[in-house]
Amino acid sequence: MDKPIDFDRYDRIRPIRWTGESLELLDQRNLPFAVAYDTSSSSDDVAAAIHALTVRGAPAIGIAAAWGVVLAARDIVAANGVDAAQALEPAMQRLNAARPTAVNLAWAIARMRRVLQAAGSDWREVLEREARAIETEDLAANRHMGALGAGLIAAGSGVLTHCNTGSLATAGFGTALGVIRAGVAAHRIDKVFAGETRPWNQGARLTVWELQQDGIDATLIADAAASHLMKSGQVQWVIVGADRICANGDTANKIGTYQLAIAARHHGVKFMVVAPSSTVDMETASGELIEIEERDTAELLSFKGARTVSEGVRAWNPVFDVTPHDLIDAIVTEQGVVERPDAMRMQALFKS
Amino acid sequence: MDKPIDFDRYDRIRPIRWTGESLELLDQRNLPFAVAYDTSSSSDDVAAAIHALTVRGAPAIGIAAAWGVVLAARDIVAANGVDAAQALEPAMQRLNAARPTAVNLAWAIARMRRVLQAAGSDWREVLEREARAIETEDLAANRHMGALGAGLIAAGSGVLTHCNTGSLATAGFGTALGVIRAGVAAHRIDKVFAGETRPWNQGARLTVWELQQDGIDATLIADAAASHLMKSGQVQWVIVGADRICANGDTANKIGTYQLAIAARHHGVKFMVVAPSSTVDMETASGELIEIEERDTAELLSFKGARTVSEGVRAWNPVFDVTPHDLIDAIVTEQGVVERPDAMRMQALFKS
Repeated sequence: MDKPIDFDRYDRIRPIRWTGESLELLDQRNLPFAVAYDTSSSSDDVAAAIHALTVRGAPAIGIAAAWGVVLAARDIVAANGVDAAQALEPAMQRLNAARPTAVNLAWAIARMRRVLQAAGSDWREVLEREARAIETEDLAANRHMGALGAGLIAAGSGVLTHCNTGSLATAGFGTALGVIRAGVAAHRIDKVFAGETRPWNQGARLTVWELQQDGIDATLIADAAASHLMKSGQVQWVIVGADRICANGDTANKIGTYQLAIAARHHGVKFMVVAPSSTVDMETASGELIEIEERDTAELLSFKGARTVSEGVRAWNPVFDVTPHDLIDAIVTEQGVVERPDAMRMQALFKS
Repeated sequence: MDKPIDFDRYDRIRPIRWTGESLELLDQRNLPFAVAYDTSSSSDDVAAAIHALTVRGAPAIGIAAAWGVVLAARDIVAANGVDAAQALEPAMQRLNAARPTAVNLAWAIARMRRVLQAAGSDWREVLEREARAIETEDLAANRHMGALGAGLIAAGSGVLTHCNTGSLATAGFGTALGVIRAGVAAHRIDKVFAGETRPWNQGARLTVWELQQDGIDATLIADAAASHLMKSGQVQWVIVGADRICANGDTANKIGTYQLAIAARHHGVKFMVVAPSSTVDMETASGELIEIEERDTAELLSFKGARTVSEGVRAWNPVFDVTPHDLIDAIVTEQGVVERPDAMRMQALFKS
């Protein structure tokens, strides 16, 4: 990068706070109108918060689930880690089932299970230390990815992002939004556009608000205006996060990502996916094997509890889609960048 | 077509009613929650209603404007059509300026001006007869286009539409939605999907409601889910209307249309534009010459008067985009169908 990035200057929000007794989650359902933390006192509280989207964003979900395992341990009596793992298994499975698409959730729980099984009588401390490590490593990874991703962007660029991949979706700084923060800090990015991200409006409610907190100007557009924007020549990169990246680079992310990738290719705009390596799922060969979460159609049929369409209207609400690897120019992880990803290039980085 | 289409079975709404004294416009801003007509007693009332989107849809705007000229004539004393045309010119220009993109508006006013200039002392009757003709010809054109368009669709097809191009947007039956009505009536279309059409939600509020009135099942999707839908193989045609079709077939339509056309081509899904020949503007050579209307960003920043994003957020709200002719498989007008439109094929139909 051109000069060191002042990370703290551009990163003022923390969505997850562990108090030592409970987990406080910044309630993202009511942002930006109410900035309030919701307290989880049990692992089932955490699972419910993940399911209800109180906390969202693949990395943040993984971190919250890790703290959920720590909360579940409160109710357990066990002489060693193996016994504790067995006793905690039902709670871990409930956490795991709270959202189907984000691989970080399963990854975080598997990591907690693994350290537990190797732990002795100090298994409680081991568990808490591991949750903390998952969180601090995520923040460090995001800062590193920010520098790597911004390094791919030419000075004077405009960028378009989708959904929210910022501090709110992670331990802090963000994945795709971390690259945008780093790119703005490094004077490589001049213009930031954010799509609304229907139906949950993560772009409208969260991304532009989060960037405001850091003094970064962003312009909101309707999701359907993205191609018109690209044609105008104002954006050189689309930068998005990921909920799951397959062994061949196929990427599951928020509904609409795939459409942006098609439009980007059509216009010669570059397409970047930014996610920690915990999002990479080398066990899933390609995108058609990913289960796509469909959520309640009420998200499309109402707003703040009030109906927005007439009674009896049907809707289809898949909340993720899969972008095939051949539409992706770069996958940025904290372990490095995979340009023009395919199975071979992915394997070179993630199975070396 | 396979059998005669029962047009009345599938067409129960009329957005524009001339009472003989005033113009009643079905207020589309509050649909589907309130089905209420707004009364315009002057041409400036009509211009305001067009600007405020009380009435919308390119053909409906043209019809309303024609009745607006009839209303303006109330205040005029003139011995013949030429004198009346001169006196009415300021009102006609104010009507003309109410929306910039829809060519039908200028077309309808030009048509009123033309008959006026040829009229004698019976100019008031001539004017009223012409407004009525514009309206009845539109309905007839829509039914004819419905049959022509449905003839292009294979049995068992699924279709996706955007915005509202139905009875609400026309004198009745609709343009793109008329083709869908005809295709359903002829048992060629099995599944209808409608995009929300942010930011004004014409698809969510108007299209699915209008189809409900006729007993046609439709499924609402987020605009950003269209590519994922196409990949699933459930749609064979995207069918949209137009606000202006250029001499080479380039088509201005609701924001998001261009994005659908790119996605359709990527998936091998066919793309049909349906509009009366009054939408064809042979004086404008190609799409880059079209002025694209940008509307108040409040449409993106609030819902029913309540803010949906934090204070101070900026937005960009272009409400149309241009789909280049090479992404269009067929332009259907009441004068005939132009397949794979380009300047030569357009000229063969519209300058013959």
